Amino acid sequence: MTQVDDWQLTADVVRSFSNTPDQRLKHILTELVQSSHDFVRRTNLTFEEWNYAIDYLARTGHACTPARQEFVLLADVLGISMLVDAINHRERDGATPTTVLGPFYVGEHKLLPHGSNISSGVSGAPMFVRIRVADVSGKPIGHAIVDVWHADDDGLYDSQKASYPEEGPSLRARFAVDAQGCLSFRTILPCSYPIPTDGPVGELLDASARHPMRPAHVHFLVAAEGFEPLVTHVFIAGDKNLESDAVFGVKSELISHLEEHDESPMPDGSPANGPWYVLTYEFRMQPGNGTAPTPLPGTRRA
Amino acid sequence: MTQVDDWQLTADVVRSFSNTPDQRLKHILTELVQSSHDFVRRTNLTFEEWNYAIDYLARTGHACTPARQEFVLLADVLGISMLVDAINHRERDGATPTTVLGPFYVGEHKLLPHGSNISSGVSGAPMFVRIRVADVSGKPIGHAIVDVWHADDDGLYDSQKASYPEEGPSLRARFAVDAQGCLSFRTILPCSYPIPTDGPVGELLDASARHPMRPAHVHFLVAAEGFEPLVTHVFIAGDKNLESDAVFGVKSELISHLEEHDESPMPDGSPANGPWYVLTYEFRMQPGNGTAPTPLPGTRRA
Repeated sequence: MTQVDDWQLTADVVRSFSNTPDQRLKHILTELVQSSHDFVRRTNLTFEEWNYAIDYLARTGHACTPARQEFVLLADVLGISMLVDAINHRERDGATPTTVLGPFYVGEHKLLPHGSNISSGVSGAPMFVRIRVADVSGKPIGHAIVDVWHADDDGLYDSQKASYPEEGPSLRARFAVDAQGCLSFRTILPCSYPIPTDGPVGELLDASARHPMRPAHVHFLVAAEGFEPLVTHVFIAGDKNLESDAVFGVKSELISHLEEHDESPMPDGSPANGPWYVLTYEFRMQPGNGTAPTPLPGTRRA
Repeated sequence: MTQVDDWQLTADVVRSFSNTPDQRLKHILTELVQSSHDFVRRTNLTFEEWNYAIDYLARTGHACTPARQEFVLLADVLGISMLVDAINHRERDGATPTTVLGPFYVGEHKLLPHGSNISSGVSGAPMFVRIRVADVSGKPIGHAIVDVWHADDDGLYDSQKASYPEEGPSLRARFAVDAQGCLSFRTILPCSYPIPTDGPVGELLDASARHPMRPAHVHFLVAAEGFEPLVTHVFIAGDKNLESDAVFGVKSELISHLEEHDESPMPDGSPANGPWYVLTYEFRMQPGNGTAPTPLPGTRRA
C-alpha cells in the first residue's frame, strides 16, 4: 500500500477491510474509516491535537470502572446516545417518545402495591404520581409493568450511594398497572442534578463552557407483552435546564406540568406541611415484542 | 433542547458548543459532532452494536499502560496515524517522504562513532548501512544528527524487552554525519514482525481477516538546524508485506533495494560466514525549524 496521497491512503485502509467475513462489520468499518479520515482532513489536525486526543481517550478508558462508564457519559454529552436512541425509534406515530436509559437503571425489583411511598426517609416536597399505560389508540394495557427511578434532593440515585444495595431501593420501584392501565405512588419532587464532572467528560464540558446539569426528571421503563418496551423520562415543566440538558434527553412531549397543592390532607391521607405536587402522565405503547431491553454494559452501578 | 428529529438533535449538540472560548477547539468539536453523528446515521447502528463499541473503547483504554498505547495502535491500523502524518506534510517537493514515528522511539542517545556495530550480541545477517543527508537540491547537510532504531530477528525492539533499559541500547543509535553529510554503521538485516495482537486491536484485525505484519524496515529520525525534522522508515525491497503493512506506513520512495554480497572480508574487515547486505539511502531534508519532534505521549516503552 504505497500511497501517493492521503486520499489513496483512505482507499487503501478501506480495502484492507475487504475480506471481513461479516458483511455488517465490513460496512461499519468502512464507514468508520471514511468518517474518521474525513474528520482528520476537515480539521487539519496537528500532531499536538492528535496526541491530546489519544491521551484523552486513554484517560477516558482509565476512568471506566464497574461503577462508572465514562465512554457512555462522553457519548451522552456529544448527543450520540440520544442519536442511537432516535435512529432505533424512527416510527413512533402516536407512541410516547423514547429517551436514554441512563446509567442508573439497575434492573429487576419486586412489585410494590399501588399507593406506596417510595421516598421513605428521603427529604423533599411530596409528589403524587398517577400513571396510565395505553396503546397508541388510547386503549388501556392492563398487563403492563412499570419501573420507575429518580434522583434525590441532592441529585443522587440510590445506586450511587456507598450504602447501596444494603440500603434501598429508594426512589426506585416496580409496579404492575391495574385493569384500567393505571397505577399511583408517592415520592418526592425531583430536582436538577449534575452529571459526574470529575473525569475527562467534566474536562470537556469545562473547556467548552457547558454546564453539567440535567433538568429534573423521573425515569420510566414500561414493558408489556405484545408491545415495544418503552424507555423514557418524564421531565418537570419549569425546570431552568430543560433547554440545555447536558445529555440532550429532553423531548417536548415528555415535559409534564405538575399540579401544585397546599391543602391538607394530601391524597394519601397524611397532613400537608407545605406544598405538594401531582404528576399525571399517560404512556402510549407501540406494538412490538415484549422483551425488556438489556441495560447497557457497564451502566449498572450496583 | 426539545428536538423533534435526529437532525435537530445534531444541530442542538453543535449549538451546545457555541460558547467554547477557544475557537479552534470549537471548530474541532463541531466537526467531531457532525462526523460522529453522520457515522451513526449512515450505519443505522443498533443498540447492540453501540454497546459493543462502548465496551471496545473501554477495553482499549484499559489496555493502555505506560509501556503500551493501544489507542495509538488502533489509530495505526485504521490508517489515522498515517493520515495525520500526511496532512501535516503536504508540501514535500523533492524531500524524503515521512511516515509514522511508531511506538518504539525512546528519545535521546549518546553519539556513536561511524562504522559502529549496533547489533553486538544479536543474531542475524550482517547489514552495512550507508546514509547521506542532503537538502532538496542534493547539497550535503554536514551538521545533521541521525537517530536509527529497528527490530531484532524476533521482531522485537530493545525497549520491548524486560531487560531494557538496564541492557542496551541495542539496534538503536545516534550518529552525527560528516562534512559530506555521510555516515555508515553495521547492524543486522531487519525482518517483518507483527504488531501486538493480544489486545482489542488484535481482536479487530482477527474479525476483519487482516494480518498484523509490518514489512521489514529501519526507522530514522533526521534533525538539523534550519531543516524540518524528518521522521521516516526505510523499507527493505522484496518483503512480502510491503503491499499490506498493518499500519499503512509504506511509501514507494522509502523502499530500498539492498545489495547482497557473500565475499569475504566484509566492509568492516571481519570474515563473512554467509550472505551480508548493504543498504544505501539518501535523505533529502526540507527547510524548516530544526526542533526535533516530541515523541507521542505514552509511546515511550522505556
